[in-house]
Amino acid sequence: MTFFYALDILGTIAFAISGALSAMNRRLDLFGIFIIAFVTSIGGGTIRDVLIGNTPVSWMQNTVNMYLIISVTAFSILFRNKLDYLKKSLFLFDTIGLGIFTIIGVESGIRAGLEPIVSIALGTMTGCFGGVIRDTLCNEIPVIFRKEIYATASIAGGVCFMILYTLQIDENIIYISTTLLIIAIRLLVVKYKVSLPQFIVNK
Amino acid sequence: MTFFYALDILGTIAFAISGALSAMNRRLDLFGIFIIAFVTSIGGGTIRDVLIGNTPVSWMQNTVNMYLIISVTAFSILFRNKLDYLKKSLFLFDTIGLGIFTIIGVESGIRAGLEPIVSIALGTMTGCFGGVIRDTLCNEIPVIFRKEIYATASIAGGVCFMILYTLQIDENIIYISTTLLIIAIRLLVVKYKVSLPQFIVNK
Amino acid sequence: MTFFYALDILGTIAFAISGALSAMNRRLDLFGIFIIAFVTSIGGGTIRDVLIGNTPVSWMQNTVNMYLIISVTAFSILFRNKLDYLKKSLFLFDTIGLGIFTIIGVESGIRAGLEPIVSIALGTMTGCFGGVIRDTLCNEIPVIFRKEIYATASIAGGVCFMILYTLQIDENIIYISTTLLIIAIRLLVVKYKVSLPQFIVNK
Repeated sequence: MTFFYALDILGTIAFAISGALSAMNRRLDLFGIFIIAFVTSIGGGTIRDVLIGNTPVSWMQNTVNMYLIISVTAFSILFRNKLDYLKKSLFLFDTIGLGIFTIIGVESGIRAGLEPIVSIALGTMTGCFGGVIRDTLCNEIPVIFRKEIYATASIAGGVCFMILYTLQIDENIIYISTTLLIIAIRLLVVKYKVSLPQFIVNK
Repeated sequence: MTFFYALDILGTIAFAISGALSAMNRRLDLFGIFIIAFVTSIGGGTIRDVLIGNTPVSWMQNTVNMYLIISVTAFSILFRNKLDYLKKSLFLFDTIGLGIFTIIGVESGIRAGLEPIVSIALGTMTGCFGGVIRDTLCNEIPVIFRKEIYATASIAGGVCFMILYTLQIDENIIYISTTLLIIAIRLLVVKYKVSLPQFIVNK
Repeated sequence: MTFFYALDILGTIAFAISGALSAMNRRLDLFGIFIIAFVTSIGGGTIRDVLIGNTPVSWMQNTVNMYLIISVTAFSILFRNKLDYLKKSLFLFDTIGLGIFTIIGVESGIRAGLEPIVSIALGTMTGCFGGVIRDTLCNEIPVIFRKEIYATASIAGGVCFMILYTLQIDENIIYISTTLLIIAIRLLVVKYKVSLPQFIVNK
């Protein structure tokens, strides 16, 4: 549990930094930066909680994450010029966050007694939908629909999680191997510039 | 109930096809196509479930629709060039879906003991909001706000449903007549190019 | 309670008028105008209710507001040319609405036994998110992220509310002073054209 919680914190930090940076790139004002950082960080988990009826939603019950996001965003604003050089480590953090949040989502589906395919969908939403809300609020087509194999890595991780879970593998092994799989897919995909096919309708 | 369920399936299929086609027209990638098909198909019902507190939401409790949407989307991708010729039958399916989903929404409002006006609003949301989410995610002003008498047909159907319900007409007659009314309005409106008035503010 | 309820009604009216006017400015059709007026008026409260699990959401339980919004929107359409001259009083009503809805949101957080920082966040959402949904549906970057100190006034009011509440000041005094504080901040900010700083990333 402690290992899990540490990863949750790491994911929250990474998503908050990425939200703050992207809000600054879009020239939002101070409040906008905090809101976008917040939404990127807790959006996916909030949608998950609302859909399964886990209310008040998580961030209302455990406020540690709120204070964390506020601190991290303030930090990002102060060190914004240095952080931009850190884009590569950000990408890594973001990928770690995707891995962790996917697992947390799948787990909450299993705990709520939902079917495997629903649990995988919950994992994907928890991992990806913070970014979807961020892009929608900033008036852009969510990048996960366009450029990168992002959600697909999350789905692959969710499927792997469910298979190992059915085989009754030890929990900690499931967490670690699933997270590593998601991170590996995403790193390889970006390194080799793989992207999903588009399908054009002939007219 | 079986008659109703068959119509629900038909509506789900129609909305999934329309979502997949519109995602391909916008050149989204493979994952984007599945997500938009999914959202168009279950979005309205999900918002309805969340607002009345019916959680976990319907598609989590009955996964038949999820498998159905996945199959239909795969089918739409494979036969995308042929489907485009079918635009007219698609329009018909979409209209049938609008009719059915409106009724399902109104019914869940009545079952939850809500007032008539709220039940009608729920019916309209169930019928229309899948498309609203689809357009918002694709970064367009939802088409229902602009071009066609779409939601208005749904509202008219909902009002008709409530009147017949108050008169204690047989349920199956209500379902059929309301659905036919919505379909008829929409067909006539598109045929004769009726649209709602806009109101310009003089400056 | 009666004083509170009267203010709620006033806020609902103000937000409905502002939604209807902004929909007409964007040339939406009749249905679009009603929907945007509705969403601007009840959007913030609905998100709050969904997040804390207060379902069916408020406007489904008390339909007075629905009839009120419909009447006010019809009124706005009929008198649209005269209302445009009233932009200044609209701005005032909108500001009053922001104040009231912030207080209502903070209160529902306290009543649900949530922590102060969460209650303040709920107040801000209740006050601001109707406008955020309106702008998102209309395909614009929400104005609160860009031009004006809007949400910041709401947050300041929420903090003030919590401080006075902790000091066990009389409830009615809290309501009035907090509302006045929010209104004062917003009036001064617009008069002196104060805006929040933006942070540009050097490249």
